[in-house]
Amino acid sequence: MTLALDAAAQDLLFREARTANTFSDEPVGDEQIQAIYELVKFGPTAFNQQPLRIVLVRSDDARARLVQHMAEGNQAKTSGAPLVAILAADNEFHEELPTQLPHFPQAKDMFFSERSVREASATLNGALQAAYFIVGVRAAGLAAGPMTGYDAAGINKEFFADGEHSVLAVVNIGKPGEDAWFPRSPRLAYDEVVTTV
Amino acid sequence: MTLALDAAAQDLLFREARTANTFSDEPVGDEQIQAIYELVKFGPTAFNQQPLRIVLVRSDDARARLVQHMAEGNQAKTSGAPLVAILAADNEFHEELPTQLPHFPQAKDMFFSERSVREASATLNGALQAAYFIVGVRAAGLAAGPMTGYDAAGINKEFFADGEHSVLAVVNIGKPGEDAWFPRSPRLAYDEVVTTV
Repeated sequence: MTLALDAAAQDLLFREARTANTFSDEPVGDEQIQAIYELVKFGPTAFNQQPLRIVLVRSDDARARLVQHMAEGNQAKTSGAPLVAILAADNEFHEELPTQLPHFPQAKDMFFSERSVREASATLNGALQAAYFIVGVRAAGLAAGPMTGYDAAGINKEFFADGEHSVLAVVNIGKPGEDAWFPRSPRLAYDEVVTTV
Repeated sequence: MTLALDAAAQDLLFREARTANTFSDEPVGDEQIQAIYELVKFGPTAFNQQPLRIVLVRSDDARARLVQHMAEGNQAKTSGAPLVAILAADNEFHEELPTQLPHFPQAKDMFFSERSVREASATLNGALQAAYFIVGVRAAGLAAGPMTGYDAAGINKEFFADGEHSVLAVVNIGKPGEDAWFPRSPRLAYDEVVTTV
């Protein structure tokens, strides 16, 4: 009652959406990923920074190079998903910041000249963008299977030779298959999460 | 066309939603925040961990204690918003993990016994949850004004005396006021963000 978002959209994005562990054979096209991006690119970040980078793993060779770095329990589903996306933060995102924040181009040098500060900002804001992307996958009527069980250093070296990117999550994408999920695990109650001062 | 989410919901959550810098006087009730939480609590995280904590700043005293730690450019809007929420990661989230991940209670000790690992995980997954919360604020028909311009150590000490929480963002919440936003700043093009291997 209290929400402006219609109930079907609530279900699609949150209430009935689940992390899929198996997928059907139906392919996921580039036009679907582009539609997702064109929607979720508007999600807010600090200074309008956009550190998120998305690598779509489509070739057999790239899939094999990725799977070897996944935790054992994630290898079968990473092998079987119609599409796998590597979500990473570009720690040199500040280079393009002046074009993305035209009213305050000084922000690049005022706030992001130190690598450690940049990297923390890329991680935080890249994670916000990763969440928007996951919501977007669901908005496309697809199931997302985000994973963080992998050798991060291995993936970074394998897919980002410049040393400037940090993987945030690997996401299986597709239509759910048979027995795609476990029963939903509990969530913390409102009073365990929210306090008022 | 390609998305399952209806166009009105796309607009509400992403396309027409904007980061508000001014707000109307209309109050934001606890029942609205609870409705938001009951929706976005279902957003996925690694191991179903739920590090996000939300502090609703309602008293004048707490508002003043918060505003003093905000960057100068954020003080007026933090003072004027109908409601301000501090979003923080609980770096000791693993304590409740066995009850939130009942099929794999060993995860607590297998993966999160080291503080540095826990803290990185709380930051990443807390940021995912913060993004889901921002989407939820928009789903409630409200504008969110997330900010990271503040003295983080000051806020952590002021509002989380246990030393176990790290602020992720401070979010102004309400109906937008007059001249609530700048023109939208540019987003990176699809080809600048997405590559295929």
